[in-house]
Amino acid sequence: MDSTAIIGNIAALLTTTSFLPQAIKTIRTRNTASLSFPMYLLFVTGVTLWLVYGVINEQMPIIVGNFVTLVLAGIILGFMVKGQLTKKL
Amino acid sequence: MDSTAIIGNIAALLTTTSFLPQAIKTIRTRNTASLSFPMYLLFVTGVTLWLVYGVINEQMPIIVGNFVTLVLAGIILGFMVKGQLTKKL
Repeated sequence: MDSTAIIGNIAALLTTTSFLPQAIKTIRTRNTASLSFPMYLLFVTGVTLWLVYGVINEQMPIIVGNFVTLVLAGIILGFMVKGQLTKKL
Repeated sequence: MDSTAIIGNIAALLTTTSFLPQAIKTIRTRNTASLSFPMYLLFVTGVTLWLVYGVINEQMPIIVGNFVTLVLAGIILGFMVKGQLTKKL
C-alpha cells in the first residue's frame, strides 16, 4: 500500500470514528442544545447518498465508512428529534 | 455526467455544506456545551489528511470539499477551544 493510500485510509478512519465521541456524549448527557439540527439532517442525507454511491460502485471502504458514520450520526439526529418532540408535549 | 457521479457530487455537497449551519449556530450562540471536543479534534485532523490526499492526487473535488469543511469545522473547534480557555481564566 503506497503512502497516499495510507493517508486516505487514516483520513477515512478519523472522519468516520470522529462521530463516536459525539454520539457517546449525546447519549450520556441527552443535551443537544448546541447541536445544529439542519447540520445533522444535511449530513445524514449526504452520508446516505455516499452509501448509495459506494454500493453502486461496489467500493467496500466507502460502504463501510459511511455505514458506520450513518449509524453514529443517525443516533445523534434521533436524540435531537426526540428532544424536539418532548419539548412540544 | 452519469447518475452515479451526480449522486457522488450531491453527497459531497451535502456533507460539506452541512457544517455551515453548525458554524453559524456556534458563532451566534457561543454555546458549545453539547458539542464533543474529541469529535471535532478527530474530524479536523481527518479532513486535513483528506486535503493532503486530494493535493497529492490532484483531485480538485476532494481539495475544494475538504477545504470548505476544514474552514467550517475549524471555526467550530476554535470556539470550543476559546470556551475551554475562558472557563480556566
